[in-house]
Amino acid sequence: MAKNAIVGQSGGPTAVINSSLAGVFQACQNRGADRVYGMCNGIQGLLEKRVVDLSQKLPSSLEIELLKRTPSSFLGSCRYKLPDLNADTDVYETIFRVLKELDIEWFFYIGGNDSMDTIAKLSDYGRRIGSHIKFMGVPKTIDNDLMVTDHTPGYGSAAKYIGVVMKELVRDATVYDTRSVTIVEIMGRNAGWLTAAAALARDEDCEGVDMICLPEIPFGVENFIAKVERLQKEKKSLVIAVSEGVKLADGRYVCELSDDASFLDAFGHKNLTGTARYLSNRVAAALGTKVRSIELSTLQRCAGHMTSRTDITEAYQVGGAAAKAAFEGHTGEMIALKRLSNDPYQCTTEPHDVHEVANFEKKVPVSWINDTYTDLLPAFHQYARPLIQAELTPVYIDGLPRHIYLK
Amino acid sequence: MAKNAIVGQSGGPTAVINSSLAGVFQACQNRGADRVYGMCNGIQGLLEKRVVDLSQKLPSSLEIELLKRTPSSFLGSCRYKLPDLNADTDVYETIFRVLKELDIEWFFYIGGNDSMDTIAKLSDYGRRIGSHIKFMGVPKTIDNDLMVTDHTPGYGSAAKYIGVVMKELVRDATVYDTRSVTIVEIMGRNAGWLTAAAALARDEDCEGVDMICLPEIPFGVENFIAKVERLQKEKKSLVIAVSEGVKLADGRYVCELSDDASFLDAFGHKNLTGTARYLSNRVAAALGTKVRSIELSTLQRCAGHMTSRTDITEAYQVGGAAAKAAFEGHTGEMIALKRLSNDPYQCTTEPHDVHEVANFEKKVPVSWINDTYTDLLPAFHQYARPLIQAELTPVYIDGLPRHIYLK
Repeated sequence: MAKNAIVGQSGGPTAVINSSLAGVFQACQNRGADRVYGMCNGIQGLLEKRVVDLSQKLPSSLEIELLKRTPSSFLGSCRYKLPDLNADTDVYETIFRVLKELDIEWFFYIGGNDSMDTIAKLSDYGRRIGSHIKFMGVPKTIDNDLMVTDHTPGYGSAAKYIGVVMKELVRDATVYDTRSVTIVEIMGRNAGWLTAAAALARDEDCEGVDMICLPEIPFGVENFIAKVERLQKEKKSLVIAVSEGVKLADGRYVCELSDDASFLDAFGHKNLTGTARYLSNRVAAALGTKVRSIELSTLQRCAGHMTSRTDITEAYQVGGAAAKAAFEGHTGEMIALKRLSNDPYQCTTEPHDVHEVANFEKKVPVSWINDTYTDLLPAFHQYARPLIQAELTPVYIDGLPRHIYLK
Repeated sequence: MAKNAIVGQSGGPTAVINSSLAGVFQACQNRGADRVYGMCNGIQGLLEKRVVDLSQKLPSSLEIELLKRTPSSFLGSCRYKLPDLNADTDVYETIFRVLKELDIEWFFYIGGNDSMDTIAKLSDYGRRIGSHIKFMGVPKTIDNDLMVTDHTPGYGSAAKYIGVVMKELVRDATVYDTRSVTIVEIMGRNAGWLTAAAALARDEDCEGVDMICLPEIPFGVENFIAKVERLQKEKKSLVIAVSEGVKLADGRYVCELSDDASFLDAFGHKNLTGTARYLSNRVAAALGTKVRSIELSTLQRCAGHMTSRTDITEAYQVGGAAAKAAFEGHTGEMIALKRLSNDPYQCTTEPHDVHEVANFEKKVPVSWINDTYTDLLPAFHQYARPLIQAELTPVYIDGLPRHIYLK
């Protein structure tokens, strides 16, 4: 009987999630999997048996190299939460039936918190029914909020992107000899890792941003305006980085204060957008200064043209390490990155029980934030700087980076 | 008596305006200017005699190379319109007095339409009073809306940036197997050149964007929603590029329809922002689909990490050509780019009377837009594709591109 592997991608896209896919695919091939399938749109597509044979889609090393350089999820993604194991087993029966039809021996899921919840539940269910299938999680999220792992693949590239564009925005925003406040909104619902990366902009060739507001610290609008007023007395043009997830002391998101109709989407979901716009309107009204709000939006998670080679390499490594562990019999685990040293930067991989990861969130330590809650301390720089090192040059064809996509 | 040159930068920043500054500076040095001054914040700083000696600020070829790679205006910028020559000569007297104090023989101003207006007025006034000073304009604007010149330095890099991020956003936006509409707002108040560059994303490795709305074509909101509805029947996830400057048949900007308080800034200026947000809200309400709006904002004009080498080279060349013309006695002119052929792409420079440029706007020819006003025809691609060719790699230090700035 054939022994096949299957791999899926889930949750929000990153610039390097396809590098992990390449790592899983090549390691499974090298270790002798008969076939390596890809799930289309993750577990949601698997339920409908929408799969592709990856060796057909990725026939040569050229496609693999393009895959590593292509942002977003090559296989498509989903946001699908498996039901509680004790509540409803229908969906589990469907999944295991499909896996059996495909002769799956090794199952990989690349994603963040919710995806690790999927691995936890599938491996628990597998144990319950005595399945031989090995379930391994491969970490991925720009948010860097997974427990156990030192950092998550995807964070280094997003942090580098944020460092780069904050430097550029500082240059742009300070060009006129007039009073202005530019507020840049950065992703991160509860953890401020990405917003903290704005601190990387400051160096001998850049003044850096003037204030950084993380969701770890309760936010006061009046206090914020007062800080802006004080800062603007010293410096005409300010650039401020705020997390989309900054919250008032009572727990409401700042963007909820906006009366903008776009706050609730068509389905009534809370849409964490408009924090910078709301704050810049308040600052303009209170201080009579020119303002501009900029949302980095999805640009910050799909910037395949500006990745950290350290990150993209580690993304590939965790994919390979997941295959190694699964082929050695591990199941119900996630590959974590373990930092050995900062200088020189050394990092290795190790598997961890996925239950230690699923449904927890790792936040920026408050001890890494300065006394006035406006900047990051050296501990953050020592942590983040190695993760943004080096670049993986895109393959430019006719002026634009070449990608690969599943037609 | 010393014979000195002076150069200023004006208007909105671009990724390559400093390359033109480098071109002017080096050509003036090579041609024997005793000193090359830079105006801080353009003509506004000149009025206060805020100038720097560029040979002190740019002592070696290392600084020149960093300058070429640093986005935004190294010398700072301004938005300052000189009064009518017949209305008020005080400001002209001040300027010419400062220029005399600095022993200026050659005067260069790098900018767009308003800056060419400045050159026109200064050279007219100079002729009137019999001044020996030569006034030359160096074109710069991401908007590509200057007459006479085939294209403007700054456009190629911004167009390349837009092509790159639209490809990445298409990859990101189509990742879920759900109905969604992503509307991307691109700069361009009256001319659609930048928004048209979204058409460059389509290639064998990318589906491209699904609709492009230029300000050259009157915009109907209901018609737009109907088109989106039709498109979404064929394809679940749509990506649409709209110009910030799209206008209704009655001439109002679409963003004026928004009731968002941010539409008027603190000074009551019309702020062309919120077009994508307004349209995405309308689409969500009408079609019940998930929506996302993304404004490229100033990111598209300061992306020094992603420039077109063709553009940055031409930006340098027009600076050098302006110096050559001025040293040969030309005045009241702007250096235009003249395309000789598309394949192979060849382009040269030639001076033109600046009065042919100032206060006109060049728009995208309607004959380059398809019948349904949703896409660009091959004529646009033949025009734009050569302008985005090749890259100028940033100098990366410790993970981020190195800049240079005037402290």
